[in-house]
Parts: sequence; C-alpha cells; structure tokens
Amino acid sequence: MAPIPNPKVLFAAYPAGYPDVKKDFKYDTSESIDLETAPLNGGFLTKTLYLSVDPYMRGRMNVGGWALGSLFEGYGISEVLRSETDKVKKGDILYASTKFQAYQVWPADAKVRILPKTSEIPYSVYMGAAGMPGQTAYFGLKAVGDPKAGESIFVSTAAGAVGQLVCQLAKAWGLRVIGSTGSDDKVEFLLNELKIDAAFNYKTASTAEELKKFGGIDIYFDNVGGPTLDAALDAMNKFGRIIVCGHISMYNQKPEERYGIKNTYSMIYKEVKMQGMLVNTYAAQYSDEFYATVPKMIAEGKIKYSEDVTEGLEHAPDALVKVLKGENKGKAVVKVA
Amino acid sequence: MAPIPNPKVLFAAYPAGYPDVKKDFKYDTSESIDLETAPLNGGFLTKTLYLSVDPYMRGRMNVGGWALGSLFEGYGISEVLRSETDKVKKGDILYASTKFQAYQVWPADAKVRILPKTSEIPYSVYMGAAGMPGQTAYFGLKAVGDPKAGESIFVSTAAGAVGQLVCQLAKAWGLRVIGSTGSDDKVEFLLNELKIDAAFNYKTASTAEELKKFGGIDIYFDNVGGPTLDAALDAMNKFGRIIVCGHISMYNQKPEERYGIKNTYSMIYKEVKMQGMLVNTYAAQYSDEFYATVPKMIAEGKIKYSEDVTEGLEHAPDALVKVLKGENKGKAVVKVA
Repeated sequence: MAPIPNPKVLFAAYPAGYPDVKKDFKYDTSESIDLETAPLNGGFLTKTLYLSVDPYMRGRMNVGGWALGSLFEGYGISEVLRSETDKVKKGDILYASTKFQAYQVWPADAKVRILPKTSEIPYSVYMGAAGMPGQTAYFGLKAVGDPKAGESIFVSTAAGAVGQLVCQLAKAWGLRVIGSTGSDDKVEFLLNELKIDAAFNYKTASTAEELKKFGGIDIYFDNVGGPTLDAALDAMNKFGRIIVCGHISMYNQKPEERYGIKNTYSMIYKEVKMQGMLVNTYAAQYSDEFYATVPKMIAEGKIKYSEDVTEGLEHAPDALVKVLKGENKGKAVVKVA
Repeated sequence: MAPIPNPKVLFAAYPAGYPDVKKDFKYDTSESIDLETAPLNGGFLTKTLYLSVDPYMRGRMNVGGWALGSLFEGYGISEVLRSETDKVKKGDILYASTKFQAYQVWPADAKVRILPKTSEIPYSVYMGAAGMPGQTAYFGLKAVGDPKAGESIFVSTAAGAVGQLVCQLAKAWGLRVIGSTGSDDKVEFLLNELKIDAAFNYKTASTAEELKKFGGIDIYFDNVGGPTLDAALDAMNKFGRIIVCGHISMYNQKPEERYGIKNTYSMIYKEVKMQGMLVNTYAAQYSDEFYATVPKMIAEGKIKYSEDVTEGLEHAPDALVKVLKGENKGKAVVKVA
C-alpha cells in the first residue's frame, strides 16, 4: 500500500486575545504515512476518529504553555489499526490524550482507555459527558463542592460541556440549580431540556439580581471568573463552596485588562471556601466511580447531552475559536474520520 | 455600701472610614451600681480587669453589625465579686465575651472560661497569645492551612496579635516563615525576637519581589486582603492554601474604593484553596488542644508575646483606632481596673 497523507494541526503563534485561525494555527499536509509498513517499535498505530476542543486549550497557547511549532493535542477517540503490544488490539476504540493528526503511532506504554465494545452511547460522548468535561463536573462537584440534597448551586456557562453535566448531576443529587448562559436559546435549553430550576442570559440580566431572587447559593461552580465570580461571592451563603474550574472571561485578556474581584472580604464572615481544580488531580480517586455511573445515566436518558460537531481536521481551529467565543451549542467535537 | 459609678463605652455612630473617637463612641458615666445589693437573679457580678480591642470590631461597626447605642463588647478578663450560682465563685478569674463596662451582672448560664488560679502567665495574655487571637492563629493554621514541616508560609500583619502567633507556631512546627509588617521597627522585632526567616516593611518594599526572593509560598495567612492578597496569589505554589482571616486594608473603605483581586485565575492551574475562617467555628474541635499546649509554650518562653497596654476604660476607643491604623506594638489591651 502506498503512503497516504497524514495531515496535522500545528500551534504556530501566540495569540493576542482570541486566537486567529489563519495566523496562530497551521494545517500541515506535508507528512505522509504507510499504514501497512510504518514501524511501530513495539507500540501501535491508530486512526483518529474524533478530537475534542475545550476552553482550557487557550491557556496552553500562552508563553509557558505549548511550544511554538508543536502539534496540537487534546482528548480524542481513535481506532487501533495495527498493534505490536498485548495491551491493545486491532479494532479497539481508545480514549486518550491525542495529537491533532489523522494517524498516530503510540509507544506500548501510552496511557489510553479502551472503551467498551458494546457501548450504548456514541463514542464521541466519551469526550464530553462521559469524558474529560463530564469528569471535571463530577470530580469538582464531589471533591470540592461537597453537595448536599436541598442545597442551592449556581453554574456559569451552564449550557457548556462541563456546565451541562454539573447542572444534571446536581439535579440528580437533589440540589436546586440556577444556571447562567450567553443566549436566550440556551436559557430555553437549560429550562426545558435540562430542567434546572432557574436560568438567565448574563448578557441581558443582572447576575447579582438573579442570584438574589433565587435566594442565595451554597455552591458556585465557576467556569468564567470576572464579574460573575464577584457577584457569586456576594450571593454565597454561610460556609459556601466555590469550585474554581475555569476563568473563560479572562483567557483572552491581557493581565492589565483583567477584572478585579472585590468581594473576597465577604469570604471571612461567611467562611466561604474557594478552590481551584484540575480534573487529573482527582482521577485516581473518582475515575472508577465515574465510569461505573455516568455512561449508564447517559444511556438511560437520565443525563442528556448535546454535541456541536465540526467536520474535518482542517476545521479544528475554527471549532476551538467558536468554543472560546461561546458560540458552540453543546460539547464541541471535531469529526476527523 | 453606697452605689458607685459604673461607666461604659457605647457605640454611637457608623464611622465613615476610620472611626472617630469623639463622634462614633460615647463614654457614658451616668449609670451607677451598688456592688453589695445589685440583684443577681441567680447569676453573678464581676469587676472588669482587662478588655481586648481587635481589628474585627471595625466590621461590627458597619450597618448590619452592632446596633447604634449598644454597649461595646469584646473579649475580656473579669474577677467575680459575688455569685449566686455554683458555676463560678467569688475570686474566680473569667475569660469571656465582655461588655465594655466597669461592672457587669451575668446570667447563670453565661459562657465563660474560668482561668487557672496558679497561671504562670499574666491574665491579660489570655486575651492575646493564649486567647482569641492565639486561637485564631492556631485554629486557622491547623484547620485551613494544613501545615507540613519544610513548607513555606507568608504571614501579613506578622507583628500583630494574630500574626505573631502564626509566625511562632509555624516556626515551632518546622515551617519557613516570611512576614510583612508596616514599620522597620517591627521588621527588626520579627527577625530578632520572633526569629522568623525573612521579614519586610510592605510600605517600602515590594511584596511580589520579596515573595519571589523567598522562593514561593505554600501557605498564606491573610490578615489584610487587597494588593497583598493579590501578590500572594501570584506567589503560591501548587496546591497552596490561603487562610482568609482578615481584610484590614478594607475595613475602613467604602465598597467602591476596594482594590480588585486580579490573580484568582492562577488558582485554577495551581489548584489553590482559599478559605475564610472565624475562630468560633473551630472552638469545639481545637480548644482543649489549644489550652493544653499554648499557655505552656508561653510560660516556657517558646512563644513570646508583646502587649500594648492602654490604661482606663475611657481610652478604649483610642486603643481600637490605634489597632485599626496599625500603630500598636503587640496585642492591644485596655486595663480597666
């Protein structure tokens, strides 16, 4: 079999503000691969099926993050084409941190998760509700949020990949849920599809007033930082918990443009806890519980999900910028093959 | 015996900025008491020996705190003159939340701590290193800070009543300690008397640079908020903990004058925890341990303390304003009798 193209997406330049699809990325088609003869050195060869684009990637695109010229990388779903290790075999479907490239050769000790053959949910969902964003929601809510039935929770970017899961897990665990989002469409989705108790468009409503009407909050799952975090601090109940998961309002700002949080004062007398979290920190503790619970809840329709699919590896940069601007509806995934 | 004057300090007006000794307080000498015949209704009568003035009092002087016209109240040391309850007896020395008045009649179920008769430390120290400020340091450091030998800690208002204890407990527990304070005198005191590892005058040095030179911090014991908290956030190590104990830089500010914290962003990737605390929350858990440990460490000279004594109940307001302006050297106490 003759070599075929193995296109890839490279990180080309540090963005100023929102990434520029033409300037900051490079879609490189110069490489090719022979799928039958490419040396595996004891490892395995995969074909990339899906790639995930997520807000955290913007942080990697700053100085100190990814090296210029390196391949983009993110969570992905791949199919094994050939293998020289017992760890995986031809036909296995893998979930792993994956290069943004059509085909990839992995070392034998690569950290991958083999997905169930008879999964009742589409494989792409293992990058969303049943993947990293779902784990972020589950681990953050459990480990930092310490939720109790009857408590109130506020979720920002509630219609986003992480937010949707936080909303639905919180409802399933007996909490009252209020969510903020950036369009009236998404407000409808939150109320009618996810059935949360209250939702508002932060662009047209006052976060402070909406939280006041809701009667204060015990937990805030923060995906945005900025003025929303400040309003949440003011609305926290005694012994409230804030899960600091993302600061999307700041990812594309220069430090001097950043909004300053004024309500840390109230953390003292309300004894509020605010804690940053990265999903991998809690993987050892909660992964088994997560995979035993969440895919089943999704299959049974107890957790709904929505996807925003972009077709073609070459459009991955567009998909990422769309996420950073909040224009995606549901979990953003790139269908590669 | 004839009635004698029973002077008291009243809260007269909400301060704008720093309290005004003449306008916001009232020293009222109109009341009198007959120490032999005053009805006790099953309770007991005390003579106030010492009263404590502390930064937290400024928070109570805002709308929503103390009622205008009410008596000032704070931790104090009193001697029992007469008692109709078995709980305390004549001659007992009590530590309790105490009215700012020369004599006081208490109900039988008042929450007081009887101090040991043969204390090896002066009774006034039970309002400082061995009292609420000491407990604040001990409880906050233990419960929120989770200190481990070899870690680094930054303490703001390190020469203050709480700060001094945090510094010394942290040293005793094997941590490296850097402290900030507001004068060169106090820097000398921290280095030469409390023997901490580094200290600086925040008015003449850059907090950010001093923390950088020190090599980052694992714990920050925050007594001030504002730009110091922001610099500390930037200097936190991975999995750092911030004990939010006081925001003295903001107590005398209007909300619109407040400094905005810009570095909450870094809490995410460093997974920093920041938690507000009030001393009473941890009393049930840690009080016995505290009273079994700290007075002994003080008596043995392992914990040093300094006091800033103001004589006379009528000067209590001056003593409080001095504390709020950072002009006291050591724990501010008012000697009443």
